[in-house]
Amino acid sequence: MNIILASTSTLHGGNYLEYLDAEIKELFQNIDEILFIPFARPGGISHEDYTSKAADYFSKINIKVKGLHEFEDKTEAVNKAKAYFTGGGNTFLLVKTLHELGLMTILKYNIEGGKPYLGTSAGSNIAGINMKTTNDMPIVYPSSFNCMELVPFNLNPHYLDANPDLKHNGETRETRIKEFLTQNETKVIGLREGNWIRRKNNTITVEGSQNTRIFEFGKEPYEIESGVEL
Amino acid sequence: MNIILASTSTLHGGNYLEYLDAEIKELFQNIDEILFIPFARPGGISHEDYTSKAADYFSKINIKVKGLHEFEDKTEAVNKAKAYFTGGGNTFLLVKTLHELGLMTILKYNIEGGKPYLGTSAGSNIAGINMKTTNDMPIVYPSSFNCMELVPFNLNPHYLDANPDLKHNGETRETRIKEFLTQNETKVIGLREGNWIRRKNNTITVEGSQNTRIFEFGKEPYEIESGVEL
Repeated sequence: MNIILASTSTLHGGNYLEYLDAEIKELFQNIDEILFIPFARPGGISHEDYTSKAADYFSKINIKVKGLHEFEDKTEAVNKAKAYFTGGGNTFLLVKTLHELGLMTILKYNIEGGKPYLGTSAGSNIAGINMKTTNDMPIVYPSSFNCMELVPFNLNPHYLDANPDLKHNGETRETRIKEFLTQNETKVIGLREGNWIRRKNNTITVEGSQNTRIFEFGKEPYEIESGVEL
Repeated sequence: MNIILASTSTLHGGNYLEYLDAEIKELFQNIDEILFIPFARPGGISHEDYTSKAADYFSKINIKVKGLHEFEDKTEAVNKAKAYFTGGGNTFLLVKTLHELGLMTILKYNIEGGKPYLGTSAGSNIAGINMKTTNDMPIVYPSSFNCMELVPFNLNPHYLDANPDLKHNGETRETRIKEFLTQNETKVIGLREGNWIRRKNNTITVEGSQNTRIFEFGKEPYEIESGVEL
């Protein structure tokens, strides 16, 4: 496998995908066209505009982008594509759509077969075992929470440390993930913005500018540095 | 109907349910025992400890508390109870458990028949049409997102305004609810901490110390003051 799962598409004050420039060039070397999966986007911009945004970025590195929504036969489009990018938005909507279209498994097989995959945010969540550690609001009801399991754990993108100044009783991200671990024994990677997971064949590392917080069943959460194998 | 749906159980710096003292006394007047539904609690404290916490509060106003987890025949326990309180925690876990036990509809019928109901946080979410506007993490997969529909809208408890200082790309609460409205036409009440919804027969008002933010399909969000009818 050859995949990048990024916490976010855009760093605060930066441009779309900019901080991943070098990584994306390496991931998609010798690829001249990728298939963009825009289905996480629930509004704000259309699937077309969202695809254009991705295409704008990739045009700078001479890669064409086609949006999966453009194809009538979406299964064939996934099977014929050379590489994939799934953008962020709402994970419930993305997972519901992929299951409805029967594409979750087809995408998984193609990526497991070696085609490069880039995910950001919701697009990274679907590479985990299931979507039970998303931060998103359950605006639609998917037929299943199961995802592609391209890595042997779950992700929590946009991982955020508790803010002690906040006078608010909503749960912290850490509390939520610990609650997940009362009901599941699945390892969770708390991926701070600026970080991404890199899988090349069987080697899985965490990369980027921040430490990464790991949550495992029956253990205290702990931090690992960039470059460490997962 | 005779219900209170509170955003939170505890205000910052306050004690459990304290800010609702006067309202709770009025809601449960002439009631000497209530049934506590502890099923939202995914960890941290047991169902027993959670029930004790509620019982401690209610002992001060001479109301006994029994936990629903104590009863072998939970349907009978709900049908025989005089009034209810559902505490907060994880809405997915609460909804999954109530559907599994077949209690969502039974509870609904009893409350619609006039028995007083108090909900806080997740306990308030389940009084809405469905749980699609919860803030909680989907740590378990419920058989349905449908809830009791004791009010003709959805709730977003712990409603939080955007923090412009936060250098983080996670969606704001307002963005999330607007995303919900791209997929659903259901009205959403953004209930800030310190506020609650009061339904007495057919009159539904929003009460408390803050304004309340309302989201409707095809409209800009707007604010209403405490005391206004919904």
